[in-house]
Amino acid sequence: MRQAGRYMPEYRALRQKYSFLELCHTPEAAVAASMLPIDMLGVDGAIIFSDILIPLEAMGMNLQFDEGKGPILSDPIRSRSEIGRLRAYDANKETRFLPDAVRMLKAELAGRVPVLGFAGAPYTLACYAVEGKTARHYSATKSFMLNDREGFKELLFRFADAAADLLIAQIEAGAELVQLFDTWAGDLMPDEFRAMALPAAAHVIERVKATGCPIVYFVNGVGGKLEDIASSGADVIGIDWRVGLTEVRQRLGQGVVLQGNLDPCTLYARPDVIAARVRDVLAENGRGPHIFNLGHGIMPDVPVAHAKALVDAVKTFGAPGGYA
Amino acid sequence: MRQAGRYMPEYRALRQKYSFLELCHTPEAAVAASMLPIDMLGVDGAIIFSDILIPLEAMGMNLQFDEGKGPILSDPIRSRSEIGRLRAYDANKETRFLPDAVRMLKAELAGRVPVLGFAGAPYTLACYAVEGKTARHYSATKSFMLNDREGFKELLFRFADAAADLLIAQIEAGAELVQLFDTWAGDLMPDEFRAMALPAAAHVIERVKATGCPIVYFVNGVGGKLEDIASSGADVIGIDWRVGLTEVRQRLGQGVVLQGNLDPCTLYARPDVIAARVRDVLAENGRGPHIFNLGHGIMPDVPVAHAKALVDAVKTFGAPGGYA
Repeated sequence: MRQAGRYMPEYRALRQKYSFLELCHTPEAAVAASMLPIDMLGVDGAIIFSDILIPLEAMGMNLQFDEGKGPILSDPIRSRSEIGRLRAYDANKETRFLPDAVRMLKAELAGRVPVLGFAGAPYTLACYAVEGKTARHYSATKSFMLNDREGFKELLFRFADAAADLLIAQIEAGAELVQLFDTWAGDLMPDEFRAMALPAAAHVIERVKATGCPIVYFVNGVGGKLEDIASSGADVIGIDWRVGLTEVRQRLGQGVVLQGNLDPCTLYARPDVIAARVRDVLAENGRGPHIFNLGHGIMPDVPVAHAKALVDAVKTFGAPGGYA
Repeated sequence: MRQAGRYMPEYRALRQKYSFLELCHTPEAAVAASMLPIDMLGVDGAIIFSDILIPLEAMGMNLQFDEGKGPILSDPIRSRSEIGRLRAYDANKETRFLPDAVRMLKAELAGRVPVLGFAGAPYTLACYAVEGKTARHYSATKSFMLNDREGFKELLFRFADAAADLLIAQIEAGAELVQLFDTWAGDLMPDEFRAMALPAAAHVIERVKATGCPIVYFVNGVGGKLEDIASSGADVIGIDWRVGLTEVRQRLGQGVVLQGNLDPCTLYARPDVIAARVRDVLAENGRGPHIFNLGHGIMPDVPVAHAKALVDAVKTFGAPGGYA
C-alpha cells in the first residue's frame, strides 16, 4: 500500500529524474518503481505505481504535488453547480498511461507474482476534490454533504463511475486483483457512511465484479462499520490496525477474506519486535483466509531493512498455504 | 469539550489580554472563559477552562503554545533514562491555579449547573511528552512503546498518577464529574491498547472512583475497542462519532451511561440540518442513559449561532428527563 518503494533509495533515485506526477504519467518509470519491492523485498504481489487522484486530474482538475505538502487541487469543487466543471473521462484515453503501465509490468514480471491495480473510492476522491488538499477534519466536504445531499451524491457517483472505469481499464490490461481505497470514509458517522460513501463504493464494486476480477474494499478506521463494509459486496475486506482480527472474524465470519492489519508504525521498531508483531497478527487471524498487509500505507522514512524483516517474518510464520 | 468558548468573540477578547497558558494559569480568567458557554448557550454543565498538558508543564517540561501550531514541548522524552527529568508533582502546589479556578467557578455558578473537571489520560499525555507536539502518526511514541515496553509503562504510570492527582484536586475543589481524555489511544492496535493505555487509564479511574466522584473515560476512535473501554471501570463511556450508538448499546448493554456522539463537523452545516442530526443521535440512543455531547472537541471556527442551534435542539428533542 501507498506508493510502492517510496521508502527506498532506488525510488528516490528515480525521483531525481521524474517528478511524482511524471512518474505516474510515464509507464516505463512507473514500472521501474513498481518492480522495486519485488526485487528487493520478495513481496507476493506487484502494485502498479500510481496515485488515487489521477482520475481527478483527467477530469480537468488542476493537480499538483508540492514537495512535502501532499496533493493540491487549486480549483476545489464546493457546490453542486461546480460539478459541471468536471469533464467526461475515458480511462483508456486521458489516463492511458496507467493501463499501459499495467501491461508493461505484467510483461516484465512474466508471471512471477500477480499485478495489483487500485483506485480511490468515491467518498475519498470527493474529500480531495472538495477540500483541494489533505485536510484535518474534512469540514468543507461534510458541509457540502450535509447541506446538499443530492448534489453531494451526484459528485460521489461521478467519481464512482470514474473509479470503476479506471479499475476496469487496469483489469483489461492484466491486473489480477484490484483495491478500492476509502481512506476517509471511516471518519463518517455510520448512518452517513451507509447513506453516502457505501452506496457509491458498492456501485464501483458491482461494476468491477461484473468483469470477474476480485476486488478489495479498504476503509481506514473501519472498527465502527464492520457489518456495513461486509455488505459492500467486495471479495476481500481491508482492515486497518485499530480493530482486532479476532473481533472482525467473530462479527463477519471465519470464512471472510481479510487483508491487513499491522500498524504501519510497527516498522519503526527493531526488526525482532517487527517479527514478533507479525506473528501476533498471524496468530490472531488464525486459519481464516488472509492477505497479510499493513493496516494502511507504509511511511516513507521506514528503513528498507525493516520492511524486509516484515516480509521475512510473514514468510516464516505464515505456514505455506496456511494463511492463504 | 475542548476549550470552553474557544469559538466565541468574547473568548477571543479574553485572549487579547491573556496568552493561552496565562488563561490556564489565572483562575479569574479561566473562570471567565468557563462561564461563556453557560451564559451564551445554556449548556447543562460548566467545564473548567484548562489544558490536558498542564501537568507536563508542572513536572518540568517546557510547554509553549505557538499561535496556530498547537502545543510544543521543546524537551521531549524519548527513552527510559529521560523519564528521570520529570519532577515530582503536587497537584495542589504546582497546579494550584486549577483547583482554585474550580472553587471560584463553583461559587460563581451558585448551583446553576454542575462543574466538570478533566485531565489527559496517560497514553495521550505520553504521546505529547514523547513527540513534543501534535504528530501525524505518533511514530516516536510507538517506537518507544514497542522497543522498551517496561520503560514505556513506567512513563505511563508516572502520568497516570499525575492525572489522578490533578482530577482528585479538582474534585476536592468541587468538581462534580470528571473526564479522562484519551485522544490518541484509539489509534493503537487493540492488543497494545489492552497492554498499555488501558491499564494506566484504569489506574486513574480506580483512584478517582475511590473519592466517590463519577468519571467519564473518552477514547477517540473507540469503534474497535468497545468491550475494552467498558472494562475500564469508568462510570460513563465517551463515544466518538465514528461508531453508532445502536451498535454500542447492543454490545455494551442498554444500561450503560454513554456520552456523545455527534460529528463535530456537523456544526458547519445549516442550523436546520444540525437540529435534524441532533434528533437522529437522540433517536438512535433511545431511552438509555445518555449525556448528549459532540463526539470530540468543538472546532474554533464554528459560528456561535450553530452551537446554540445544537443546544436548543438537544433541549427540544430530548424530552425532560427522558435521556438523562
